[in-house]
Amino acid sequence: MNLRHVPLLLAGALLLARSSVVSAEECIPCHREKTPAAVVQWEKSAHGKAGIGCEKCHGTDHDKMKRGEARVDMKACAPCHKKAFDSHRTSRHGMGLHSGWGCTRNMENRNQRECAFCHDKDSAEPLSSVQCARFLKQSTEMGEVGCNYCHSVESSCASCHTNHNTDLKIVRDPASCAKCHMGPDHPQWEMWQTSQHGTLYGTSGSSVAPDCQRCHMPQGSHDVSVGITMSSGGIPYPAEKAGPNRVEMVKICSQCHAPGFASRELSRGDAIQKQSMAIVKEAEKIVLDLDDRGLLDPMPENRPPHPLSGNKLVIDSQLLYEDTSHIERLLFKMKKYDYARTIKGAYHQNPAYTHWYGNAELKMDLVDIKAEASRLAKAGKGAAQADSSAPNEGEALRVLKRRLERGGITEAEYEAEKKKVLDQYLHGKQKP
Amino acid sequence: MNLRHVPLLLAGALLLARSSVVSAEECIPCHREKTPAAVVQWEKSAHGKAGIGCEKCHGTDHDKMKRGEARVDMKACAPCHKKAFDSHRTSRHGMGLHSGWGCTRNMENRNQRECAFCHDKDSAEPLSSVQCARFLKQSTEMGEVGCNYCHSVESSCASCHTNHNTDLKIVRDPASCAKCHMGPDHPQWEMWQTSQHGTLYGTSGSSVAPDCQRCHMPQGSHDVSVGITMSSGGIPYPAEKAGPNRVEMVKICSQCHAPGFASRELSRGDAIQKQSMAIVKEAEKIVLDLDDRGLLDPMPENRPPHPLSGNKLVIDSQLLYEDTSHIERLLFKMKKYDYARTIKGAYHQNPAYTHWYGNAELKMDLVDIKAEASRLAKAGKGAAQADSSAPNEGEALRVLKRRLERGGITEAEYEAEKKKVLDQYLHGKQKP
Amino acid sequence: MNLRHVPLLLAGALLLARSSVVSAEECIPCHREKTPAAVVQWEKSAHGKAGIGCEKCHGTDHDKMKRGEARVDMKACAPCHKKAFDSHRTSRHGMGLHSGWGCTRNMENRNQRECAFCHDKDSAEPLSSVQCARFLKQSTEMGEVGCNYCHSVESSCASCHTNHNTDLKIVRDPASCAKCHMGPDHPQWEMWQTSQHGTLYGTSGSSVAPDCQRCHMPQGSHDVSVGITMSSGGIPYPAEKAGPNRVEMVKICSQCHAPGFASRELSRGDAIQKQSMAIVKEAEKIVLDLDDRGLLDPMPENRPPHPLSGNKLVIDSQLLYEDTSHIERLLFKMKKYDYARTIKGAYHQNPAYTHWYGNAELKMDLVDIKAEASRLAKAGKGAAQADSSAPNEGEALRVLKRRLERGGITEAEYEAEKKKVLDQYLHGKQKP
Repeated sequence: MNLRHVPLLLAGALLLARSSVVSAEECIPCHREKTPAAVVQWEKSAHGKAGIGCEKCHGTDHDKMKRGEARVDMKACAPCHKKAFDSHRTSRHGMGLHSGWGCTRNMENRNQRECAFCHDKDSAEPLSSVQCARFLKQSTEMGEVGCNYCHSVESSCASCHTNHNTDLKIVRDPASCAKCHMGPDHPQWEMWQTSQHGTLYGTSGSSVAPDCQRCHMPQGSHDVSVGITMSSGGIPYPAEKAGPNRVEMVKICSQCHAPGFASRELSRGDAIQKQSMAIVKEAEKIVLDLDDRGLLDPMPENRPPHPLSGNKLVIDSQLLYEDTSHIERLLFKMKKYDYARTIKGAYHQNPAYTHWYGNAELKMDLVDIKAEASRLAKAGKGAAQADSSAPNEGEALRVLKRRLERGGITEAEYEAEKKKVLDQYLHGKQKP
Repeated sequence: MNLRHVPLLLAGALLLARSSVVSAEECIPCHREKTPAAVVQWEKSAHGKAGIGCEKCHGTDHDKMKRGEARVDMKACAPCHKKAFDSHRTSRHGMGLHSGWGCTRNMENRNQRECAFCHDKDSAEPLSSVQCARFLKQSTEMGEVGCNYCHSVESSCASCHTNHNTDLKIVRDPASCAKCHMGPDHPQWEMWQTSQHGTLYGTSGSSVAPDCQRCHMPQGSHDVSVGITMSSGGIPYPAEKAGPNRVEMVKICSQCHAPGFASRELSRGDAIQKQSMAIVKEAEKIVLDLDDRGLLDPMPENRPPHPLSGNKLVIDSQLLYEDTSHIERLLFKMKKYDYARTIKGAYHQNPAYTHWYGNAELKMDLVDIKAEASRLAKAGKGAAQADSSAPNEGEALRVLKRRLERGGITEAEYEAEKKKVLDQYLHGKQKP
Repeated sequence: MNLRHVPLLLAGALLLARSSVVSAEECIPCHREKTPAAVVQWEKSAHGKAGIGCEKCHGTDHDKMKRGEARVDMKACAPCHKKAFDSHRTSRHGMGLHSGWGCTRNMENRNQRECAFCHDKDSAEPLSSVQCARFLKQSTEMGEVGCNYCHSVESSCASCHTNHNTDLKIVRDPASCAKCHMGPDHPQWEMWQTSQHGTLYGTSGSSVAPDCQRCHMPQGSHDVSVGITMSSGGIPYPAEKAGPNRVEMVKICSQCHAPGFASRELSRGDAIQKQSMAIVKEAEKIVLDLDDRGLLDPMPENRPPHPLSGNKLVIDSQLLYEDTSHIERLLFKMKKYDYARTIKGAYHQNPAYTHWYGNAELKMDLVDIKAEASRLAKAGKGAAQADSSAPNEGEALRVLKRRLERGGITEAEYEAEKKKVLDQYLHGKQKP
């Protein structure tokens, strides 16, 4: 046995015998074996060099750490990094989780740590009532890997900064943002990378071309919502909020561009948003009408209930991509993927994303949705013909009732339409 | 007040009082504030260092500049960069706009500057009659961001070279090409990047591996059409044009590869083009036949007119992705995306693009198109059965007429087929 | 004429006059003209510097080389690189071809060299009986570019190492793996690149973050199957094989992470695999049932035969994407693309691939498959109603028979079900 290992072994034995630690000196000997990269990264980090030891972030309760209950979240970072913490909290990143979650209380194998995302300790009062139906449909594991890896940004600085490495070049690289801001629903990284901005960045660096951080985290601000004029779902803010935000963004663009040019480019994005939303609305109307007429296949009443709204049609931001009819899943693609790509592509000046991945897909979605509606209408008509006992007037009244109930028409409109149907019925009866 | 600013203020006051400028010295003081990056980039550029001032490219009419009417296009660059200008003009890039445009005269909010793409000043005579139906369907803003960002390459050197920066490393980087040559319709950048060529470039640089410029702009030529053997839509040139072009390309490949190897690789691309086109033709035949039989849903006569051809089926290069039936939109995906990816993937030696993103999608498109045709035929048959007044012979004659009118059969074939239908009708009548 | 060229010309003349070569000295003069890059790369390579000449790999039969029959495969490399060769042979890469091929004996324009992939010289005995139906459907050219570019990894070291360049930075770059491990069916490169691992690699290099090689080829091993717990098609290995492999992989993760953390992350992948497979199985059941009931459009008996199984439904790993019904092609997308992306995304810790490109697509596939099944069932019912001579009991018995024949039910279950149908028939008859 090598005598040089004796102190290390003694330290280890001491630690195993105790359940609390008080300084890095105690942790390092064991953890150099157990989590070597963490130790090396900490040693090279600003924390390590400044003597900020393990216990400052992880606490001193070793048993708790071993049970996985001593997670280091942003509250550990806040006392020292107050400015970053404060601007992060007020930004969309600080709200990230609220829009990505629902209460997991009744889910199998729920993860107790998730409570802390929405509740203060020992409080049943939620900090936010926003919930995500899509999250609530996932298994624990898919929720963890597929949802929380990104949607923990609210509470964890490590989402971007990684765990023990404090090298700022990591978070100053657009690749850091790419981890979440990519993919079919919001490929901001991909569209930036292949835009004029991104290609200039690739050849000439961030001193010539802007990256994510330069426009969305100006001067190192952690408020990523600076200059944004719409919700994360692409719904424009009211003018009183959008106006000042736009002024902010034009200021950022004007570091390189003439303000008039910048304003015009961003206005094009606004126009494209309106035009694209009109296409989405046309599709939504088709789906709502099919629901009114009982033609969705399957109808909401014949499928697993929506986690938030039960057995009724949901096509707002809580639209699901599973346990729906085919036409609703087409609408999902349209709203969540193609609408987002069109408008984000325009604001990021990427022609291929604006037009091909966005606008062209959006319009093809509408073709597909109309085709499916036509198929469903024909199948419905066929079924109605086969079932000769179905009186058309009864059906028309049922459709009106559904439309009223979902708020598609007012009570007065309902009464007027109902009268028309009944008049026609009596008129028709008299005819022969 | 700092006295050092007096000359600057005087210059500014002079400029505001006048409507013309004569040298960079007059522009810089104001524009260092208004468009700082432009000034810095110009100062560091070859132009700035050689004393080529703002007025050389922008002219001297400041009012016109402020109205956005003094756009710097390639005519500003041509006098000094004649060789590049000339070879660009004769290349496919010089034709870029012609194939991406249509006359915007009757469009709302049309952009007057667009006239100059196709007309000499004060002339109604078009320089080219090629038009793009897909462009004509777009809003002004989508046309600008989604189409013109790429399709202004004909008239603007800045498309690739950017505005004030003259650093050649920008245009010598494949990322410069990626801005346009990416996406679902022609992902040349993506397929190069993940081919053997691209991965070698990534690890070992352009001295070991070829990039876009090395093969398509040899020795700095601006004729990007060197060695290309087919149209941008993937229709092979006639042998007398394709032959010499292929010889050119094999020469380029032979800088690294044995000529026999290069020829064989490119011939594989030719074979794959033929095989893929046969699949496209099979799909086109299905769509044409449905149109003949009146089974498209909706039929061309029941939807917004095609911008160039009105209320008739268009499945050539002017095929739309909006306001069509579902099966035409499937054909659009097949022709514009999957056919292109298959053959461009093969010529760029990328197996994943050739096979998975190309060939597999192309063949799945055919499965989908056949399935939709079967659905439409069944729905049509169902409707015909329900409408017992529809005589089958009349329908058969109508189909023949449509086929004749679109040039699908000759007059003689039409007469022969018509006779058959009528004979069968008389024969059938006599039978019972 | 330059006298300095005389020796070169003499060497060339000598070579043309002879059909064999014995050393690089003889090859270089001509090949510096004919294949310049090959010569330069060899000269700079470890081989060139060590005096390992052309003839060591290419042999000495120049005629054979010119006929393309002296291909350099891994047998040329093996004698010197025995350790790499041996571990490659036992790895999944060494099996690569077997799963990518079928016998091409009866194909038009078959490539004679392909025999050597499966047969020892002059032997009709196959080394492996695994075949690929998808490969057998391809043209010679698509097979070569689309399949063999990747699936020659079994027999060719150059697949990764390239031909004459021996610079190890090429094969140590993840881009080398990307050439094959990308695309819709297995985007391992894309999902690594945009994971935490990949973004750290991009900013901080391989000393901080793991790349493909660090985890899958530890310490330069050529056994890429280390630590893998399932087949390339995503079917888990039996516990006795998966268990020890998992231990291996956790060891690799533990270079950076706590073993408990690594185990938990990988277990999440296991859970997601099981959940995803359950969705696939639900879809498979739907397709099998449609086949039993004769409702696929077209049915297997009415389309070109499957290359391995003839005119019957094939939905296992030999599932085709061409010459099938629409619903089978949806199943293909689900199994080959979306199932693979979900589970590989989870094991590679990429949320966008696990959830959006994977799980969401998988669940939308199920929506689409159910919708198509509903359409087919309705169309089938419509046809049955129109054809009043079809007795329901006969149909039910036919369905049972098909289910029995494909092994979907046991003989006993068949007899029991059959009795039920017949009882119902008799009972029904008596009723009215």
